[in-house]
Amino acid sequence: MDVKNRIIVALDLPDLEKAIEVVDAVKKEINTVKIGYPLVLGQGLDSISTIKNEFSCQVIADFKVADIPETNRKIVDLTFQAGADAVIVHGFVGADSAQACMDSAHKNGGEVFLLTEMSHPGALKFIKPVSLEIARMGVKLGIRNFVGPSTRLDRLEKIRRIIGSGSFLISPGVGAQGGNPKDTLDFADALIIGRSVYLSEDPEFAIESFIDSIEK
Amino acid sequence: MDVKNRIIVALDLPDLEKAIEVVDAVKKEINTVKIGYPLVLGQGLDSISTIKNEFSCQVIADFKVADIPETNRKIVDLTFQAGADAVIVHGFVGADSAQACMDSAHKNGGEVFLLTEMSHPGALKFIKPVSLEIARMGVKLGIRNFVGPSTRLDRLEKIRRIIGSGSFLISPGVGAQGGNPKDTLDFADALIIGRSVYLSEDPEFAIESFIDSIEK
Repeated sequence: MDVKNRIIVALDLPDLEKAIEVVDAVKKEINTVKIGYPLVLGQGLDSISTIKNEFSCQVIADFKVADIPETNRKIVDLTFQAGADAVIVHGFVGADSAQACMDSAHKNGGEVFLLTEMSHPGALKFIKPVSLEIARMGVKLGIRNFVGPSTRLDRLEKIRRIIGSGSFLISPGVGAQGGNPKDTLDFADALIIGRSVYLSEDPEFAIESFIDSIEK
Repeated sequence: MDVKNRIIVALDLPDLEKAIEVVDAVKKEINTVKIGYPLVLGQGLDSISTIKNEFSCQVIADFKVADIPETNRKIVDLTFQAGADAVIVHGFVGADSAQACMDSAHKNGGEVFLLTEMSHPGALKFIKPVSLEIARMGVKLGIRNFVGPSTRLDRLEKIRRIIGSGSFLISPGVGAQGGNPKDTLDFADALIIGRSVYLSEDPEFAIESFIDSIEK
């Protein structure tokens, strides 16, 4: 995936008008957005195509899909049919559930991002102990896109080592959750930035500041 | 939660008209349905209130919520505001993420079901080794509603022992996934039945057969 300026903007807000305002403010610097359930539940799944059509951007649907294979397939089918370029899928539910998402991606011409370790403190309890194994499972399944935490760089480095330099790794947690942009990009291909942009009074300035801090 | 005939019908299909047909066919025997993302993504979040208003039934939103606390809160707020009586939440993502859902439930007058162990084969890899600990975490958080698998009754029994007789335990996996209704109800308070009902040519007959097999 070709992510402009190595930044993906997360639109984790339930208001489509506000989401469009944010994308409009950053469209010169950004070609990829992440849309999650807050927006889709609040405004419908066709928010994906609305934003995609308006800005010709790539959309990653961050649905953290985590169901049995049969249901995962239905969720991911609908997501790609709504225009998403990629969907984020939980690894901890197991290989069969991830494979169902892969099957749907192949059928619909989309991509799967496998979520290895999450960025919040609660992830330390059950997810961190198995996140490297989740990454290995993804490699074995032929997945080439992964998500790992910018809040724990030692883990991000380990995940990168497992998935190899040819895989694409994106990382949330920079900004509001405390991750450092430049250090994260030592291991990740792109940052996911949410609150620091969409809650900013000047999203364009916020993005430009991140780009500056990366380039320094 | 008072579940008539100890059966919850899962509406894991993307077509609201078909979902309404199914509920209409079983409404004499059923007062609780489970709605998942296939229906909500296909037909909008207001599918919940449409079904609730038409049949005066209880709706459990099976969103297997599995995000960071901040996003979990937004998802669950929207779900309760759309009329759901309860929401199913993954335990695997940790105590802070589950707590965010509990906070939303308290605020909105809804209930949280904590998903301990899932029913599919892939759950054996990462979830089964920690599912009893997830149940213990739920008890510690004050959660009183749980989900456990009918496909592994030894596990369901252990989960029941941890959560105690005062907690409410519902169980998917009966029917298409192979779980036995009567044996499951030795440990669970109610069954979740999906494909065996909504894919049946005669959903009412399918439900009556399940009720018979439970009563025998």
